[in-house]
Amino acid sequence: MINVGIIGAGRIGQVHAKSILTGVPDARILAIADPYMKPAVAEWARSVGIEGVYDDHRKIMDDERIDAVLICASTTLHAQLSLEAIAAGKHIFCEKPIDQSIAKIEEVKAALEASPKKLVYQVGFNRRYDHNYRAMRKAVEEGKIGEVQFVRVSSRDPEPPPAEYVSISGGMFMDMMIHDLDMVRYLSGQEVVELYAQGACMVDPAIGEAGDVDTVAINLKLANGALATIDGSRKAVYGYDQRGEVFGSKGCVTNANDSESNIVLSTVAGVTAEKPLWFFLERYMGSYQAEVREFIECIRDGKEPTVGIEDGLVSIKLALACAKSMKENRPVRIDEI
Amino acid sequence: MINVGIIGAGRIGQVHAKSILTGVPDARILAIADPYMKPAVAEWARSVGIEGVYDDHRKIMDDERIDAVLICASTTLHAQLSLEAIAAGKHIFCEKPIDQSIAKIEEVKAALEASPKKLVYQVGFNRRYDHNYRAMRKAVEEGKIGEVQFVRVSSRDPEPPPAEYVSISGGMFMDMMIHDLDMVRYLSGQEVVELYAQGACMVDPAIGEAGDVDTVAINLKLANGALATIDGSRKAVYGYDQRGEVFGSKGCVTNANDSESNIVLSTVAGVTAEKPLWFFLERYMGSYQAEVREFIECIRDGKEPTVGIEDGLVSIKLALACAKSMKENRPVRIDEI
Amino acid sequence: MINVGIIGAGRIGQVHAKSILTGVPDARILAIADPYMKPAVAEWARSVGIEGVYDDHRKIMDDERIDAVLICASTTLHAQLSLEAIAAGKHIFCEKPIDQSIAKIEEVKAALEASPKKLVYQVGFNRRYDHNYRAMRKAVEEGKIGEVQFVRVSSRDPEPPPAEYVSISGGMFMDMMIHDLDMVRYLSGQEVVELYAQGACMVDPAIGEAGDVDTVAINLKLANGALATIDGSRKAVYGYDQRGEVFGSKGCVTNANDSESNIVLSTVAGVTAEKPLWFFLERYMGSYQAEVREFIECIRDGKEPTVGIEDGLVSIKLALACAKSMKENRPVRIDEI
Amino acid sequence: MINVGIIGAGRIGQVHAKSILTGVPDARILAIADPYMKPAVAEWARSVGIEGVYDDHRKIMDDERIDAVLICASTTLHAQLSLEAIAAGKHIFCEKPIDQSIAKIEEVKAALEASPKKLVYQVGFNRRYDHNYRAMRKAVEEGKIGEVQFVRVSSRDPEPPPAEYVSISGGMFMDMMIHDLDMVRYLSGQEVVELYAQGACMVDPAIGEAGDVDTVAINLKLANGALATIDGSRKAVYGYDQRGEVFGSKGCVTNANDSESNIVLSTVAGVTAEKPLWFFLERYMGSYQAEVREFIECIRDGKEPTVGIEDGLVSIKLALACAKSMKENRPVRIDEI
Repeated sequence: MINVGIIGAGRIGQVHAKSILTGVPDARILAIADPYMKPAVAEWARSVGIEGVYDDHRKIMDDERIDAVLICASTTLHAQLSLEAIAAGKHIFCEKPIDQSIAKIEEVKAALEASPKKLVYQVGFNRRYDHNYRAMRKAVEEGKIGEVQFVRVSSRDPEPPPAEYVSISGGMFMDMMIHDLDMVRYLSGQEVVELYAQGACMVDPAIGEAGDVDTVAINLKLANGALATIDGSRKAVYGYDQRGEVFGSKGCVTNANDSESNIVLSTVAGVTAEKPLWFFLERYMGSYQAEVREFIECIRDGKEPTVGIEDGLVSIKLALACAKSMKENRPVRIDEI
Repeated sequence: MINVGIIGAGRIGQVHAKSILTGVPDARILAIADPYMKPAVAEWARSVGIEGVYDDHRKIMDDERIDAVLICASTTLHAQLSLEAIAAGKHIFCEKPIDQSIAKIEEVKAALEASPKKLVYQVGFNRRYDHNYRAMRKAVEEGKIGEVQFVRVSSRDPEPPPAEYVSISGGMFMDMMIHDLDMVRYLSGQEVVELYAQGACMVDPAIGEAGDVDTVAINLKLANGALATIDGSRKAVYGYDQRGEVFGSKGCVTNANDSESNIVLSTVAGVTAEKPLWFFLERYMGSYQAEVREFIECIRDGKEPTVGIEDGLVSIKLALACAKSMKENRPVRIDEI
Repeated sequence: MINVGIIGAGRIGQVHAKSILTGVPDARILAIADPYMKPAVAEWARSVGIEGVYDDHRKIMDDERIDAVLICASTTLHAQLSLEAIAAGKHIFCEKPIDQSIAKIEEVKAALEASPKKLVYQVGFNRRYDHNYRAMRKAVEEGKIGEVQFVRVSSRDPEPPPAEYVSISGGMFMDMMIHDLDMVRYLSGQEVVELYAQGACMVDPAIGEAGDVDTVAINLKLANGALATIDGSRKAVYGYDQRGEVFGSKGCVTNANDSESNIVLSTVAGVTAEKPLWFFLERYMGSYQAEVREFIECIRDGKEPTVGIEDGLVSIKLALACAKSMKENRPVRIDEI
Repeated sequence: MINVGIIGAGRIGQVHAKSILTGVPDARILAIADPYMKPAVAEWARSVGIEGVYDDHRKIMDDERIDAVLICASTTLHAQLSLEAIAAGKHIFCEKPIDQSIAKIEEVKAALEASPKKLVYQVGFNRRYDHNYRAMRKAVEEGKIGEVQFVRVSSRDPEPPPAEYVSISGGMFMDMMIHDLDMVRYLSGQEVVELYAQGACMVDPAIGEAGDVDTVAINLKLANGALATIDGSRKAVYGYDQRGEVFGSKGCVTNANDSESNIVLSTVAGVTAEKPLWFFLERYMGSYQAEVREFIECIRDGKEPTVGIEDGLVSIKLALACAKSMKENRPVRIDEI
């Protein structure tokens, strides 16, 4: 039985807590901490048998019974909390991104490598655990499409964030496309060598005024010579639209969106299927459970997680390369970052 | 080069003429005959090089250069014209049904067997030549689904015929479901042993007043023990809906409807594809060309057509068995007919 | 908070226990009873906080704190346990079928009506709670397809049961098609008036030797005049195949199977999607959770369940009518049963 | 009745001749010319009633009865033949590309503008006449997806050309992607402002040795600010793969590939549909007929063709910009060309 503490009791912290309670039988949540914990959340936590409900996360760090922490606090604290957890000898599941600064992530990485105890460090790129993307990756890994020659990732949110969030988001590449940049690496099994990113403001002028874009297209060159494109939008009126394709010497694998049901209605208006699931938590709920289950397995069995600190680091480099490429309107090599 | 004459210059006669002109290079139309030929049709026929444009079909029968006739006159004349053509030693393509009376079809069959010259006699069950149904049949024939255990055929017209037509149509089983009854035999490669047919009047009360039904469901037992169902409707508001399924020990093959295009539109209203093609001539145009091409090949190469007189005869028996079953509300064996 | 006891700790009893623990926050399992409870199940039950783990279900009946029971014992005990629970004033969720005898179900129904306390009695036709069938029903209820004119239900298991089970199963209509007979009523919102059922033994001769069939086709006439067909097979090599269609004056609604993922692989071998989910518990897991959630809501809010005792009774009548129809090879009116 | 002459009797010349014979009733082919005409083609031409079968195309230019020419000769002659036809006052349908040199196309354009007789000049971008792409364009034009924000075009040939062809092809952008560059303009209704093109040699090293690429990805910026991507491959083992997507403020429209049939086979191996049509003439046959029909209509009715000389010119500029961008590894503005 692995004992865990959860740091941050907001939406994603609660999602992970419920995943562990219902789907990870060999983990037990000993404590949850949040300086701004809502009373209803505290009450709920106690009702499901979580012993420690704290304001101060250091109580978790100091509890020797706790083997692992899930860092679900706000992004700016991820790196600092990681360092504390490493110092306390806890295994770490850290929500993405670890940080927007490469230097800070490398500091965490160095601390991790210097730790006398071998620690699991997993980053919350949940999409790698989604049933559809995982099945695509499996087909590629098993050689079903031969050598990878081209990858495409399309990614559209159902609604743009509020403009006030945009200005603190780190920009669309860092805030949203980071998942899709990671998907290109995951699906292809290849590193990105160079990229060229374009952006436009087509959805909401307020996003442009806040200095960001809402529509992007990225061209990537991979280590084996293959090419890739990513396209993204902050707003697809028909729902959360997340699709990909990997093409190779022996074939091609694609996925589609998930819907609430698969019924099809034929009327004078056409032959109509349901729209994609709207809300990311609904669409990716299974992946949140799967990633936490893997985290516990990695601790228990000494395995490497599917998404380690290096993946967290590279994804940030790619997002920064995109921003630089768009700003300078030229292709940027990743080793420039 | 096979010389043909077309008897009947209505819609289906013109369809066959155009098929031959554009897609059957080794056939030449020498003549077309119709007692009520429209002037525009006569003019068109001459413009495309058809030498004989007649009121009287006997000029075709008497023309020794003509090897084969296409009987496209009204249904009540099919058997009589077949007998004349057999007497004249012409190969025959006869639109379906040969006749609504078994005795008359058997008279044609006997004449055919008695003919000193071996004649090709092909019946116009065009759906057997459709790309989708043909691909299903091919999959079954190649053993892709193993032994046939169940067949389903669904058949819905976009619009009911006028009530005045209904009363002379021979009834829905004879007029419409005859194609679907034939499909069960074609797709399964099995004879029907017994069937049970239900009918209802759900679409248009005028059809009921004319003594017919507009909604049917048929249960069939096949020679190898397999079962089948057919469902039919005179009116599907979304278009001409023709689908089937064959299920067996190794799998299942289904088809879908054809549409004008395969675009899919995703909006707040849903994810919408196009409706099925509305008009049977549009949906099945390819099959009309294919069946006439086969007719010419059978004459040229001495092959048996995919749909011979026996198929024409059995389809009528099945339609009559359906009518009897519905009337007496009991299962009817085909050998009762 | 509703306190429940579970009678029967086999596969389906455990499924319901887990559903309540993880997805029904306002229900608490106080006890579980099974005369043949496995030690591992008892241990698991205690570990998740179930206080009473009994051999004897009467301890549940006698526990005044318990508001409701889930009857998950073997089928032959469902009616007797229902009577005991009614006598004890407990709300009842009873797995299907209530019994194979109409008389026994009517005895339960009478006891229920005579109960001084108004009790919820819900039957475990879980498929009514499945996301796809529920969405179809919703489309029909909302008038999207107009008046129902035809219903089709196709139902194929991935593997036949062992021949020894077949002989005690009550036959394919009672054991398997009962869900599909219920689906026709559910999807159409119509009662069945008359039916004609055919059966064949195409899958496994041992099933025939055990006196049963493995392939069936049923024709049904509904109260509003509409028609329906059901087809069933004990073995579809490609997986658990459950599909339906409701056709009406304004359109048609169909569903499809669910798969592990929606990826599509294009290679020289074709364009291949995943097979349907194989195992019924995997396919219908969501429905098991939804039905128990509704049961608790009905108790809490005084609502009628979607599937009450009358539905349980009618489904048995329909299964018996099918068996009678097949035996006598004639259409059977439901009021004959 | 419009009288036409066909210059060039190779594959595409014959395709157009058959289209006119079978599907363009108000056009008549008076002559066909080819310096290397095969005897079988000459014989066929006479058998279908084409009066003039010539070695020398000038007989067509000199024939005053001929209203229009279809230029189907080898690419290097397109511009010269266009100039001759303009001088002779003939309407022109010219296969694409008009030329690989912008100067030559501009020479043709100037001659056309200087012609005292207003002449129709249509370029053979047949894909604009395809049922699927046309339906997409129609949806965009009708405002179904709102303002265009992103366009994607994917284009994969079933087999690469022989390496010896590659070296004279003008390169993959000019030879193959020119259709896809045109599609971005057609589907979006927007001009391209700037693009960035990458290429790789992933399919066949011989193509690389011949100085070309076989795998490309292009990023484009459109006049309204929207973005676009194109991806291309010389070899998709599963067939000719041509798909697109247009995304906008109100939704998204996509298309799929056409297949020989739409049957789906479910077995232990998966749920398998047919591969896309393999051969471009089979896939796009309908579009070849449609474009010639439009050409005749434009002459008859004084309409502008969907694809005029300006479209032919712009497509060449885009292909040249791609080549320049790839060579210099930088985004290129179209007004640089």
